[in-house]
Amino acid sequence: MTSTADAPRSPGRPRSTRADEAIVDATLDLLAEGNSIEALTIEAIATRAGVGKATIYRRWPGKDALLLDALRTLKGPAPHCAGRSVRDDLVLLVGAVGQHADPRARKIMPCLVPEVNRSSAHRQAYEAIVEPRREALREVLRRAIDRGELRADIDIEVTMALLTAPMLTQRMLQWYAGDERMLPERIVDTVLDGLRVR
Amino acid sequence: MTSTADAPRSPGRPRSTRADEAIVDATLDLLAEGNSIEALTIEAIATRAGVGKATIYRRWPGKDALLLDALRTLKGPAPHCAGRSVRDDLVLLVGAVGQHADPRARKIMPCLVPEVNRSSAHRQAYEAIVEPRREALREVLRRAIDRGELRADIDIEVTMALLTAPMLTQRMLQWYAGDERMLPERIVDTVLDGLRVR
Repeated sequence: MTSTADAPRSPGRPRSTRADEAIVDATLDLLAEGNSIEALTIEAIATRAGVGKATIYRRWPGKDALLLDALRTLKGPAPHCAGRSVRDDLVLLVGAVGQHADPRARKIMPCLVPEVNRSSAHRQAYEAIVEPRREALREVLRRAIDRGELRADIDIEVTMALLTAPMLTQRMLQWYAGDERMLPERIVDTVLDGLRVR
Repeated sequence: MTSTADAPRSPGRPRSTRADEAIVDATLDLLAEGNSIEALTIEAIATRAGVGKATIYRRWPGKDALLLDALRTLKGPAPHCAGRSVRDDLVLLVGAVGQHADPRARKIMPCLVPEVNRSSAHRQAYEAIVEPRREALREVLRRAIDRGELRADIDIEVTMALLTAPMLTQRMLQWYAGDERMLPERIVDTVLDGLRVR
């Protein structure tokens, strides 16, 4: 018989409780309603979550740390790469770009852009969220270069932007008139093959 | 001797006056300060511009029409293509992506994204602003296909997103660690040549 009560308690942060979830949820609600990060206060979050400010400060040192946790929740877990072919791996990773577990993301994420440029704390929070996903993509490209499938002289960072940015703008603005489920393949194949007649 | 008083008056809209400029400016200021389109009122714009509401309604039928004019001002004129080589034309057009005449654009444009998805009027305003720029890019690609320089089977819309979206995210998030002035060339050359070893 397995009992969670018998499992060793992990040190550090207390486990997520219903109050923690309510606090993260209240933060995301306030952002989705159009409140800027600057306008957001611990007091407003506490009121919305139905908890005291002390409850928030027991778990998070301040607004920036709470915000980082809330935005991580919004993005959900990164996809796992099967490592079969460079094309399959790229299609999988491109398809996951901007795909958020939480519907509030579409309202919140674009408006965070100006904030990221205004404050280095917000820039660090943004990097902490996106960098693990970027690294997975970088690895797929590096492995394919090592195997001799992709040109060794490509600019990895430019290539990553070519693969991810069109999908990101699709999630934001729905520019693609065709079937969105086919878009990751179209993007990957066009970038792999290039435009020039040979 | 040339006298503007002797020139024939064009029918329709009155010429741009100082009041018109103040009204457009007030609209952009209020948006840049974080007010959503929904929250924006003709009354607030009139107050900020120091004019009566009637002055605004004499020139614009309503908020959406005023907004469209204000956002067009923000983007400035589209670049002119020399039509030399497909590479040169693409580098010019990619370099102009997201390059706004007005510094308020960086704050205003990302936050408009959710609005474009919520209302067909805002979607139409967005299309009216970006479509002339898109058409210039589409023309360059079509001409190069007709000349046999680019593959005839490329997806034009996907190709346009590959060329423009990385530059748009660069203007918003400055992801490129290198010299930004070189980025349009890097993007265009990578898309033209593709990634695969041949």
